[in-house]
Amino acid sequence: MTQGKTGRNGRQKDAGGGRVELEKSRMQERREKHYAAQENRLKVDFITDRGQYHAAHWDSDLEIIYLLNGNAAILLDGAQVQLVQGEFIVIDAGRIFELQCKESFMQIRVRVDKEFLSARAGDLSRENSGQGEMEIMNRRYSCQRDTLKAEQLEHFLEICELFKSMVPLYISEPAGFRLKTESIVLEILYLLVRHFSEEVRETAIPEVTQDLNRIREILAYIEDHYQEPISLMDISSEFGLSREYFSRLFHKSIGMTFTDHLTRVRIAHFYHDLTTTDAPVMKLLEENGLTNYKHFRKNFKELYGYSPRDLRKVLY
Amino acid sequence: MTQGKTGRNGRQKDAGGGRVELEKSRMQERREKHYAAQENRLKVDFITDRGQYHAAHWDSDLEIIYLLNGNAAILLDGAQVQLVQGEFIVIDAGRIFELQCKESFMQIRVRVDKEFLSARAGDLSRENSGQGEMEIMNRRYSCQRDTLKAEQLEHFLEICELFKSMVPLYISEPAGFRLKTESIVLEILYLLVRHFSEEVRETAIPEVTQDLNRIREILAYIEDHYQEPISLMDISSEFGLSREYFSRLFHKSIGMTFTDHLTRVRIAHFYHDLTTTDAPVMKLLEENGLTNYKHFRKNFKELYGYSPRDLRKVLY
Repeated sequence: MTQGKTGRNGRQKDAGGGRVELEKSRMQERREKHYAAQENRLKVDFITDRGQYHAAHWDSDLEIIYLLNGNAAILLDGAQVQLVQGEFIVIDAGRIFELQCKESFMQIRVRVDKEFLSARAGDLSRENSGQGEMEIMNRRYSCQRDTLKAEQLEHFLEICELFKSMVPLYISEPAGFRLKTESIVLEILYLLVRHFSEEVRETAIPEVTQDLNRIREILAYIEDHYQEPISLMDISSEFGLSREYFSRLFHKSIGMTFTDHLTRVRIAHFYHDLTTTDAPVMKLLEENGLTNYKHFRKNFKELYGYSPRDLRKVLY
Repeated sequence: MTQGKTGRNGRQKDAGGGRVELEKSRMQERREKHYAAQENRLKVDFITDRGQYHAAHWDSDLEIIYLLNGNAAILLDGAQVQLVQGEFIVIDAGRIFELQCKESFMQIRVRVDKEFLSARAGDLSRENSGQGEMEIMNRRYSCQRDTLKAEQLEHFLEICELFKSMVPLYISEPAGFRLKTESIVLEILYLLVRHFSEEVRETAIPEVTQDLNRIREILAYIEDHYQEPISLMDISSEFGLSREYFSRLFHKSIGMTFTDHLTRVRIAHFYHDLTTTDAPVMKLLEENGLTNYKHFRKNFKELYGYSPRDLRKVLY
């Protein structure tokens, strides 16, 4: 599979032509600061924005999202998590998640290459291929408030404090702040390794692995074709599954129906175009495959809190 | 100049042939642990040994030496500094220093590529070559107990604590200790940038630069030729200087006479061979250019606290 990242508000899209200027001023509004270290295997983003929506997707990096201000609703492997200010969540590589911030927020996002982390965690990966079975030693990370064990709480709070201490560095940028930022991130990773990870001897269970790979391929397919009409019939036969099986698999894995997900992917791309270009709303709806206007309107307001036209007024 | 590092107890020397086994066991005795990060631009060594002597040399890395146990006598640009347990000293790239630990000690040495550090300190280097003058923005680091300013003390102690916190990591190596070690080192570097460095607009003073370069070349020459007889006459004419000028320059820069330095370089190499091979003492003296036995004996005992034969008995 070549496309691992989908639905990231379509940021990789080319704004094209005369839209570049607007894109620029909009990015300044978002006040993003990006900092990469360790040959780009460690990335830190400081993001301030009025709202954010990432449709269900997965990433080959491990991701940590810390919320300094605002709220975030996260669907992680189909289960709902509410993130409140001052806390963080760890999303391990390969997990499927949807992220939504309705209001103004400030976020720190850390992304780490999983191999970089394994090497520094001292993990040894073994693959014994005997009788068609593969044994892989893998370190799984999991850290969110609602599933903390009692003995983890102190370390959870310690990491919250470490994130908090990154904020003044980001604002005032004292000499050497890059060293301190990287130092803090490495300490957070150390605490995750020690208190929020476990080494798993994965004797791959064929069905589970197959389902997960299917879902990842389905998400990638949607991301590639969202501008075209895609019916449930089309996509289930594309993957050689019955409509019923496809629907059940999709809902179980993503936490919503295929149609709702597709609409949200389209809306996320529509939102990107809406806020970075001055093209007419109707044209953007069409371009992004949004034909059911009523369904769209309800979903858009739910995700961003405004109608498209009102949102543009608020932003400019 | 190709040879920047001289007199490091000749560790790079090939022990050769049947001596490999002894070398190995001796290295275990030294209990060195080496940890490299950031594509080898950051190196951390944990060293435990019964004694150590590095003849005057310089390095293109910035070096931090922290002493957990024991004492160390350091000659830094010709001035004497005593390092006691629990403290550290920063030796900036290019500074000439001699290091001596007479007794058992435990040390943490951090070496950092100066360019790596500059990039992360946010330094911009400018070279304006107008009228043959070169202006270089350089960040100079200086941190040792005897020259601390009042406002630096708290940060000095903070760094001492950070070093101390590395010791249990080194001993027990918990999962992810590499992440924590690197995190601590980056934080130390951050504190050095903020509190123990200054940006210097260096309009190079020709004489000073010339003298320094000469001394570096002289040290490299000695390191290359110490096994041969080198008289003061030979070496001063080799560098096109009068004997008087050469002697004055050498003593001012290194803090001892040329003859004493030469003897110490030879002794450092002799010590390495003595402790890593089982060759007869007389043979090793000859190989390392040590012909004045009386002078040697006095110096050796001063540096290592034992006669050569007693030292071998103590070690094996």
